[in-house]
Amino acid sequence: MTAPEPFRFPIAARYAGMESSPLKDIFALAARPDVVSFAGGIPDPALFELADVQAAYDWVLTHHGARALQYGVSEGELELREQAARRVSRHLPTTAEQIRITSGSQEGLFVAAQAMLEPGDTVLVESPTYLAAVQAFSVHGARMLGVETDDEGVVPEALEQAIREHHPKFVYLIPTFQNPTGRTMPLARRRAVAEVLLRTGTALVEDDPYGALSFTGTTYPAIASLPGMAERTLLMNSMSKLMAPGVRIGWIRAQGPMLDTLAVAKAAISMQSSVVDQLTVARYLEVCDLDAHVARVSAVYRERRDAMSAALAPVLPAGAHVTRPEGGMFLWAALGEGFDAQSMLAEAVAAGVAYLPGWSFFADSPDRSTMRLSFVTHAPEVIQSAIARLGEVVAAHGGR
Amino acid sequence: MTAPEPFRFPIAARYAGMESSPLKDIFALAARPDVVSFAGGIPDPALFELADVQAAYDWVLTHHGARALQYGVSEGELELREQAARRVSRHLPTTAEQIRITSGSQEGLFVAAQAMLEPGDTVLVESPTYLAAVQAFSVHGARMLGVETDDEGVVPEALEQAIREHHPKFVYLIPTFQNPTGRTMPLARRRAVAEVLLRTGTALVEDDPYGALSFTGTTYPAIASLPGMAERTLLMNSMSKLMAPGVRIGWIRAQGPMLDTLAVAKAAISMQSSVVDQLTVARYLEVCDLDAHVARVSAVYRERRDAMSAALAPVLPAGAHVTRPEGGMFLWAALGEGFDAQSMLAEAVAAGVAYLPGWSFFADSPDRSTMRLSFVTHAPEVIQSAIARLGEVVAAHGGR
Repeated sequence: MTAPEPFRFPIAARYAGMESSPLKDIFALAARPDVVSFAGGIPDPALFELADVQAAYDWVLTHHGARALQYGVSEGELELREQAARRVSRHLPTTAEQIRITSGSQEGLFVAAQAMLEPGDTVLVESPTYLAAVQAFSVHGARMLGVETDDEGVVPEALEQAIREHHPKFVYLIPTFQNPTGRTMPLARRRAVAEVLLRTGTALVEDDPYGALSFTGTTYPAIASLPGMAERTLLMNSMSKLMAPGVRIGWIRAQGPMLDTLAVAKAAISMQSSVVDQLTVARYLEVCDLDAHVARVSAVYRERRDAMSAALAPVLPAGAHVTRPEGGMFLWAALGEGFDAQSMLAEAVAAGVAYLPGWSFFADSPDRSTMRLSFVTHAPEVIQSAIARLGEVVAAHGGR
Repeated sequence: MTAPEPFRFPIAARYAGMESSPLKDIFALAARPDVVSFAGGIPDPALFELADVQAAYDWVLTHHGARALQYGVSEGELELREQAARRVSRHLPTTAEQIRITSGSQEGLFVAAQAMLEPGDTVLVESPTYLAAVQAFSVHGARMLGVETDDEGVVPEALEQAIREHHPKFVYLIPTFQNPTGRTMPLARRRAVAEVLLRTGTALVEDDPYGALSFTGTTYPAIASLPGMAERTLLMNSMSKLMAPGVRIGWIRAQGPMLDTLAVAKAAISMQSSVVDQLTVARYLEVCDLDAHVARVSAVYRERRDAMSAALAPVLPAGAHVTRPEGGMFLWAALGEGFDAQSMLAEAVAAGVAYLPGWSFFADSPDRSTMRLSFVTHAPEVIQSAIARLGEVVAAHGGR
């Protein structure tokens, strides 16, 4: 007698072989208490305005408790859409009716994919780009193609050629303090990219979770705000990097009939976002000075960027290229020919420091010598000593 | 010169033509202040334990504030998975590792669909069934087939025949206090259905948002808890109907490798559910007596079910069939030959009463004489007078 075969649930092809992921293993390693991790884009919890957030929850439950606990609407609660519209309107005139609330940017990307993508569609992305966006698009059966970038972001000529060759359903860009590179598209490049999209009749998904985290005081207009672009852009913002990731609130700015499709898709996916959290974020945005908070956070992040840049400079090999972001959370190092950041990682972790190997951020043709380093989680002195240890691992691998 | 054509975003076929829905129009009508609406499954906010919920939020932000505002994990926070496992274990031994947290049942259904469905797959559902589940499955390109039901739920012989004929990816059932009919499968029927699923090697998605809302004290074991069924069932629970819909917390109980796929799918869709809400629900379940609360709510709902049943009996036409649910939120009336609940609705709304036409709950072959009436939102005297007005509309349509 043999035991019966255990039942296996049917698994859709989109998730076949994805039961475990190398990234999950990396994050598990990086979470070891003896490791200084630069792997995740994890805000420093010491910077959360906990008292303000707690006061906002308390106010909502005291003054609108029954409503906060009741069903809401798929579009999102009006107060939050008004606050979101007020912020977006700084660069792009926007009404509450043009905002759709999502449970963080990730759900925003997924909703956009649901609304637009068919299996076999092509999506053009920066090379490299945000890996979880690639996943949200890929599970819809889309083919992801990376477009050439330089220090100013996606290269317009390469973008136009790729659009004409591959007819993408949309282009996905993170123009400001990009994840993973930390690069920012200057205004002239934004205009050139907008012209390409207009000329080719292409839709844009513009992801802007970091734009407010500026170290220079300079903020950049969304590509969506350039002439002709608003009607063809889904502009995504998130409160995760500005207020707190744990509340999972973001939004999409859109216009036209697409707004209805986004609401229907959101309803199919999760009905609506937490009404408690939505009303709380609305209250927080109404009574707290988010700009002042973001300025404080940015000042701290800037010091940490400086610490990491300074620590990296002497320990990177001669041919290495490292970005010096003007804002955001991430710095990107390409060690150059002969280095493999993935295979170095075990030694780095043994030395008490972790990063994210860069290969995972490429839709295709990865540069395996790259790594993403988040500079926001740790204090400057912790960064300095951890980067010094990383330098020893790099030196042992490549010589200098 | 002609104005340029406005840009149209590409819309995936799954959402084509869904920009507006007749149901959305119905809910808009039903929300008019002069209308007593039985359309939505809206808990009475007067029954929310607002003070307990507020205390739980406060405790979490006071004692675990930094963690509540930080990123969590896609599987869900451990404390909440432990509390969920404790509840599920009343009928089916379950560990925290076997729980995946979702943003309400709707996201649970969507996650299950993401994990399993390919375009062209068949899903078997009760006829009629919960319409938002149909939508979560349909947008994955699945073909929905309704299986014959009687007063004890899905008919086992019809289920087996449909499985053998159509080879569904899974069967979706709401065995207890079903939406929309209010019907409950007795234990013997559950056993017969389980035998069919075991014999045919079929997976089950078992949705149980209402099971605790019993008017008789009797609760029913999940089909998942019957011999052999745990390994082939995704069991879904929600806090929406028991604690509060606005917090958007539910869970899936599963076992085996599927647990990893569910976590990966959840990460692609929304990364993780609100950590604040998760920790708050965990705290609420730890320190509050949810069973006592549910007993109080059920006693009120029972009175309202009685009021609606009593009011309907004299005003329904001779050939009508109406359910008398032992729990849950909904009652289902089939007016019989010649009635069309959709076309009667405008007159009902004009008379100050709204319901949900039943056609929308059928995956195929709708009985257009049916309507779903939620009895939970209004007090008995409001129910009585509104049903009397509904009776006049029915009488005008069909004579008696």
